[in-house]
Amino acid sequence: MKIYEMKIAPNPRRVRIFLAEKNIPMEFVELDVQKGENLTEAFRAKNPLMKVPVLELDNGKTICESVAICRYFEETNPERPLFGRDAEEKAIIEMWQRWVEFYFLMPTGMCFQHSSGYFKDRMNPIEEWGRECRSHAEKFFDILDNQLANNRFVAGEEFSIADITALCTVDFNRVNRLSIKPEQVHLLRWYKEVSSRPSAKA
Amino acid sequence: MKIYEMKIAPNPRRVRIFLAEKNIPMEFVELDVQKGENLTEAFRAKNPLMKVPVLELDNGKTICESVAICRYFEETNPERPLFGRDAEEKAIIEMWQRWVEFYFLMPTGMCFQHSSGYFKDRMNPIEEWGRECRSHAEKFFDILDNQLANNRFVAGEEFSIADITALCTVDFNRVNRLSIKPEQVHLLRWYKEVSSRPSAKA
Repeated sequence: MKIYEMKIAPNPRRVRIFLAEKNIPMEFVELDVQKGENLTEAFRAKNPLMKVPVLELDNGKTICESVAICRYFEETNPERPLFGRDAEEKAIIEMWQRWVEFYFLMPTGMCFQHSSGYFKDRMNPIEEWGRECRSHAEKFFDILDNQLANNRFVAGEEFSIADITALCTVDFNRVNRLSIKPEQVHLLRWYKEVSSRPSAKA
Repeated sequence: MKIYEMKIAPNPRRVRIFLAEKNIPMEFVELDVQKGENLTEAFRAKNPLMKVPVLELDNGKTICESVAICRYFEETNPERPLFGRDAEEKAIIEMWQRWVEFYFLMPTGMCFQHSSGYFKDRMNPIEEWGRECRSHAEKFFDILDNQLANNRFVAGEEFSIADITALCTVDFNRVNRLSIKPEQVHLLRWYKEVSSRPSAKA
């Protein structure tokens, strides 16, 4: 079993933190995505969308998409659940996980892609859309601060996949020159706690 | 227990089809989102992002996000699983479900929102981004046709949440004047099959 990834990208980091929280050892294969090492026919056979990370199972099948990979390991290693324990907790974690992905990670990534020119050889950057995404990402810092005023972690009292996605997105926002503001005290308190978990170094 | 929704929108339909597949009865409360019936303080207390659908549990807690609502019912009514049975099947369904959401449903919705002016009172439509999203959505019809050449359903041999998302997205693309092309024969074969399930009328 191995994972194809690019260490500096935010999505592979989500998977590495998840594995570290579960104490699951893994073999990693580094690809330089900016140089296009993912744009080969060999890699297309592993992921038709040619993105990282990709988990290759010992039977040769591949699982793409960070959260699908995490969910695979939640099933095979259910101790220390990160997607919730009962129906209500699972639903609330899924709700927050999706909010963080759709209204924070995605505009963060699109702001970067549409503003920086990083992938301009393989996409059509639209500056106005990049600016719009930046303002969406910036607003979500407030939504998180508000939620964390009454909750230890993003989806409640337990550390979950939603915290992993939020942490990776806050950190990746360096590329957009967006960071937690001094008045976002609840978000700062949370950031200090989750960043100091050993898994954050994964 | 009740669900706040708008019947013509694609996300509430995903939940209705899911419930119909599971034979779960439900009370629905219709909101006219275009008229802003979701933009009240009462509704903000149910969903801070003010979107539909929202599931209100009998204990007063609310679950937002279509897939989080579906997952709640997968847990409470596990017969006839729609998210998969074992770790590998769950991961593959999650992978396809996410691909269909990210590369088909989202550009479909953004094409509509950025091209039609439907929500121009509450967002900043960017026509060039609308056109870009239209071309992304159009490409995904080919990805689905290709996948369905060798699979009965989107994520394999079993009907799943990924088929529900794909069906609702194909149908919603009427607003973007995008539909299955005659040469996409595998997609047409699948569409005919999933559309004729009783749940498709939900």
